[in-house]
Amino acid sequence: MTVDELSFYAAMAGTVAFAISAVLSVAERRIDLFAAVVLGTITAVGGGTIRDIILDVPVFWATELIYIWLSVASCVAAFVAYRFFKHRFVGALVLYMDGFGAALFGVQATGKVWDLGFALPIAPVILGVITAIGGGLIRDVLAQRQTLLMSRELYAVPVLIGCILFTLILAYAPEYRLEGSIFCIGLIFAIRAAAIHWSLQVPEWAMMGFRRQ
Amino acid sequence: MTVDELSFYAAMAGTVAFAISAVLSVAERRIDLFAAVVLGTITAVGGGTIRDIILDVPVFWATELIYIWLSVASCVAAFVAYRFFKHRFVGALVLYMDGFGAALFGVQATGKVWDLGFALPIAPVILGVITAIGGGLIRDVLAQRQTLLMSRELYAVPVLIGCILFTLILAYAPEYRLEGSIFCIGLIFAIRAAAIHWSLQVPEWAMMGFRRQ
Amino acid sequence: MTVDELSFYAAMAGTVAFAISAVLSVAERRIDLFAAVVLGTITAVGGGTIRDIILDVPVFWATELIYIWLSVASCVAAFVAYRFFKHRFVGALVLYMDGFGAALFGVQATGKVWDLGFALPIAPVILGVITAIGGGLIRDVLAQRQTLLMSRELYAVPVLIGCILFTLILAYAPEYRLEGSIFCIGLIFAIRAAAIHWSLQVPEWAMMGFRRQ
Repeated sequence: MTVDELSFYAAMAGTVAFAISAVLSVAERRIDLFAAVVLGTITAVGGGTIRDIILDVPVFWATELIYIWLSVASCVAAFVAYRFFKHRFVGALVLYMDGFGAALFGVQATGKVWDLGFALPIAPVILGVITAIGGGLIRDVLAQRQTLLMSRELYAVPVLIGCILFTLILAYAPEYRLEGSIFCIGLIFAIRAAAIHWSLQVPEWAMMGFRRQ
Repeated sequence: MTVDELSFYAAMAGTVAFAISAVLSVAERRIDLFAAVVLGTITAVGGGTIRDIILDVPVFWATELIYIWLSVASCVAAFVAYRFFKHRFVGALVLYMDGFGAALFGVQATGKVWDLGFALPIAPVILGVITAIGGGLIRDVLAQRQTLLMSRELYAVPVLIGCILFTLILAYAPEYRLEGSIFCIGLIFAIRAAAIHWSLQVPEWAMMGFRRQ
Repeated sequence: MTVDELSFYAAMAGTVAFAISAVLSVAERRIDLFAAVVLGTITAVGGGTIRDIILDVPVFWATELIYIWLSVASCVAAFVAYRFFKHRFVGALVLYMDGFGAALFGVQATGKVWDLGFALPIAPVILGVITAIGGGLIRDVLAQRQTLLMSRELYAVPVLIGCILFTLILAYAPEYRLEGSIFCIGLIFAIRAAAIHWSLQVPEWAMMGFRRQ
């Protein structure tokens, strides 16, 4: 299997995870099948769409429709097999896959923006984070849920760290691009997995208003 | 009257209906004239604006300012003649016109995306639905109202069905484009009108979490 | 100091004020440093980003990264020195600077859209207002706060008046562009400052539903 193939299958896995975890996260609301597919697909492709609009390049799914088809199919599956996905083990698996998707999409986006030479060195980091969390933000706004920006969950900060690190690698050690991207994805995923497993939260000193106590 | 003229006047009627129904729908909140115009105009032109940004073509109202002028005038009229529009008969008329607007804008957008050959065959359907409901979603988010995705109202699904059908007609029977577009607009409107008249909702089996009872 | 330099330093001051006032406005929620930087930076550059996407020109911060750096630094400063900025005098200063930023960004945007000849004469006004208030709207939606469209605060209407006036000057007296821009910024700021100082609100007759009493 080549690197490109590996990268493609990883992106497919991330898309499936984003779509399924999105549908599960809004399942406590009584939504219908249409809303489940819309919210899941926005979560899966929304961040990359915002990225491409800011970059002023064609949206990535316009030439690779597989992202849309796979996302719609995943949403329908999550809707139909809702009980199965709510099973503790399967649910945990989806949560970890979602963390892997965020890691992968963030680092991939950083690489894409770097290659375009767009607003270096800051846009690769900003658009990496937007790609990873933008779709979830739109979903939460449309579903009137609290966005992750207002929660103490450790979700976006690991992505930020990984995208900064990968940007530094692209700037100062471009010959290690492949190894660096794998390391950064692994790092983001490791922090996120630790946060899921031990229920880690943003520490008190990094919260606003903590001095008020 | 030519087809183009008919199409133009229909789009004008849809714009007026979208703007007025938007202002009426936020009227229970104590908003001011400025907010009424902003929310009404976003509802009327917002969906098409998102479509054109994703297509990376100039936004449609940039070359046809009449859409903006008409929308602003409709919002001011709805604001001033609020009581008149709240009248049961007039209010029902606006509701049906709004359904007609959604049908028309959805099918027109499907045709536009098809002609551009953008991400066939899925983008004509996706962007048709976005054009029909996108403006209303932004309005509801800005006004902190429940978006239609979270309600059981039958609004978006008829549009989805009509856009899929029109895409099939464009693909397999392009010689019937005109008849097909009229039929699809009529179909969407008929389902929507039935939903309004008989207060139809999304059936129980298409709702998530229905097994919990 | 040339006009361009003055204009540049004014935009920097507006960016700092937008970022700091945004962080202070969400400080009652227990957000973390990451969320503070994201919400503050979106407020500072979000409106201009929407404007540039609709205009289909490169986003302004892509070539002038100083806007991002300054905004991030201001957010961190507001987060760290939260208590200092909560001081009554400093807080008021930030509020007035924010009003100045809205005035400046609105009028500057009107000029930019006019120079591009985009959808004259209405887009310079619409995009002027969007540039001034768009970032704040996104911040409030992401933070689940009431948007200013739903409040009675006099914030957007002065910007609207100033942008309309500046568009008229560009159309009928372009030789007074510099004087006109200064006058319009001053006018918007004066109305906004009066609204802050005397707690002015949108008058009753401009509110919807006022007849119901």
